[in-house]
Amino acid sequence: MSYNQTIVFKNKPVIIGSYSIVGPKEGKGNFGPYFNYVMKDDSFGEDSYEKAEKKMLESAIVGAIEDAKIKPKDIQIILAGDLLNQIISSSYAARNFDVAFLGLFGACSTMAESLAIGATFIDSSHFDKLVCATGSHFSSAERQFRFPLELGNQRPPASQWTVTGAGATVLSKTGKGPKITMATFGKVIDYGVNDVNDMGAAMAPSAMNTMLAHFKDTGRTPDDYDLIVTGDLGKLGSEILVDLMEYNGIKLGLNYNDCGQMYFTRNQNTLSGGSGCGCSATVFNSFIIDKLRKGELKRVLFMPTGALMSTTASQQGETIPGVCHAIVIESDIEENKKIDQNKKRRVTTTRKVSYGKKKEA
Amino acid sequence: MSYNQTIVFKNKPVIIGSYSIVGPKEGKGNFGPYFNYVMKDDSFGEDSYEKAEKKMLESAIVGAIEDAKIKPKDIQIILAGDLLNQIISSSYAARNFDVAFLGLFGACSTMAESLAIGATFIDSSHFDKLVCATGSHFSSAERQFRFPLELGNQRPPASQWTVTGAGATVLSKTGKGPKITMATFGKVIDYGVNDVNDMGAAMAPSAMNTMLAHFKDTGRTPDDYDLIVTGDLGKLGSEILVDLMEYNGIKLGLNYNDCGQMYFTRNQNTLSGGSGCGCSATVFNSFIIDKLRKGELKRVLFMPTGALMSTTASQQGETIPGVCHAIVIESDIEENKKIDQNKKRRVTTTRKVSYGKKKEA
Repeated sequence: MSYNQTIVFKNKPVIIGSYSIVGPKEGKGNFGPYFNYVMKDDSFGEDSYEKAEKKMLESAIVGAIEDAKIKPKDIQIILAGDLLNQIISSSYAARNFDVAFLGLFGACSTMAESLAIGATFIDSSHFDKLVCATGSHFSSAERQFRFPLELGNQRPPASQWTVTGAGATVLSKTGKGPKITMATFGKVIDYGVNDVNDMGAAMAPSAMNTMLAHFKDTGRTPDDYDLIVTGDLGKLGSEILVDLMEYNGIKLGLNYNDCGQMYFTRNQNTLSGGSGCGCSATVFNSFIIDKLRKGELKRVLFMPTGALMSTTASQQGETIPGVCHAIVIESDIEENKKIDQNKKRRVTTTRKVSYGKKKEA
Repeated sequence: MSYNQTIVFKNKPVIIGSYSIVGPKEGKGNFGPYFNYVMKDDSFGEDSYEKAEKKMLESAIVGAIEDAKIKPKDIQIILAGDLLNQIISSSYAARNFDVAFLGLFGACSTMAESLAIGATFIDSSHFDKLVCATGSHFSSAERQFRFPLELGNQRPPASQWTVTGAGATVLSKTGKGPKITMATFGKVIDYGVNDVNDMGAAMAPSAMNTMLAHFKDTGRTPDDYDLIVTGDLGKLGSEILVDLMEYNGIKLGLNYNDCGQMYFTRNQNTLSGGSGCGCSATVFNSFIIDKLRKGELKRVLFMPTGALMSTTASQQGETIPGVCHAIVIESDIEENKKIDQNKKRRVTTTRKVSYGKKKEA
């Protein structure tokens, strides 16, 4: 079944392997206990941050393949991207695998982009097993997008902290594990934000747009998920999203949160929270998949957002568009259907969500 | 049917629309008469080359949609990428369409990458119509990857001329036109070339690798195609490819050529020929599709190559890996099958291609 932006997979791709690797600061954050590997220092034994970023991504791919208990030769294709110019972390990581490679760029939405393409590939019946991966590094991102760290610039309150980390997921046609049941492909949305230190505000409208499309296409409401999680809107951006959604008649409750907002502890001084491809990728490939595997999460709407910014565009006076893709992952589809049927009876008698106009309180 | 790297489409995607737009120099080149639009000057009325590149890509997408005689709202998704950091031409072009967007990065292989993903999407039955697009601009590429044009640097003999141009293709589940019948997804291959002025040498090994995989997966030989065309290996790179293939026991004959090599006339002073995402994209969306539509080409193996280089990686002492994806496009599948059957009888009695070792003369 296919809607305008949402596709419902027939042969639902199974997550058979995942891996997350992070830097020391990230390891001390709220998701610390869930990560597979915490680096002792963020250079990872390399002589540049870019090389460290590449090595992390490589490690994540190898880790996910091992977690799936398969061999690299069982993988048909690697779908990966990152924030660096010409996505060098991904291309150079892929060089070390004897596997076909497709390079992606969706900024911090890349984990969802790779999963959406990967799931469609598996469902097309042409692919058996593939890897989706992405990562980012605080120090390589800062010097590419903002200032050299050596300058010691002050960070404004809306700024976010690019996560040093990488995550990888193995999707398979068969096997046991959480399944990807839907994907909603997002549009490029620009509300005119031009502050490179306020990515949350730049990306929130794209999250809203994709979330509205998802609910409209599927007829679902936030109640249908036990977790709705955006990628790296941060504290400010996720508040903006809640407001934007409420304005559109949809109230996001306690089942909504944002990886960037949750990532670091209050005293880690990351201002508006985590960001970067690695932010949602490492949370997804640790905490979220872990909870889905254990059945502690039944159905998750995973929505990483990307700020499609570039120093060149900014210098030429451009605003910053955003993009957001959404993925639905379920722990046990049959069980969830039963829950749905019970819920539907309840929902239709108690409340009705209206779209496109402000909801009455 | 699926092989290791090659997939054979069941519901073969139809090319129902295409468009090419190029700069004035490109318009005077060998493919001049085939392009849909030749710009009067390469700024395209914009105040920066990056903005001109974005506008070209937008024009190509609109042109392809019009050529398909459909409306933008009929398009479900745009698959695009380019050479600029954070693929700003594609992201900012996509902003102006009310359509989902997936950003890609495959350097100059992007036309094939977008077609390969697009064709798989159509074949998955989840997508009806989509656009694949890419482009490049000589002046934005020079200043990003090499030197500011104002420096007036000398160009070494192996250097190539980034094509100013953009191309777009509309793929559809139904309709009339040439069909995409196979795609071979390429690996990242690095033979250790580190000269940013010799992209052809950096990319030729990836073209070889993908071509060998294609022939091995499908059991085909170069004789099965009336045109085998790489993207932008240029004069030098395409000679290297011919040598590499011969070393592997496969002789590429007169049915092999390279878009970059053919692009400009001898007196246009582009040394080793054309390059850039726009090179193969504009040749594909003009000359190649035109000849396929008229039946003057029956079966084409289209193999754009990408040099996954980046100034950051080069400055850190890295070599330049390449990637190449291959697409098979056929004018009339039923007619081609008949030709195959006749050819097979002939081929098996006269010659046999052996793989993996040097062919006896």
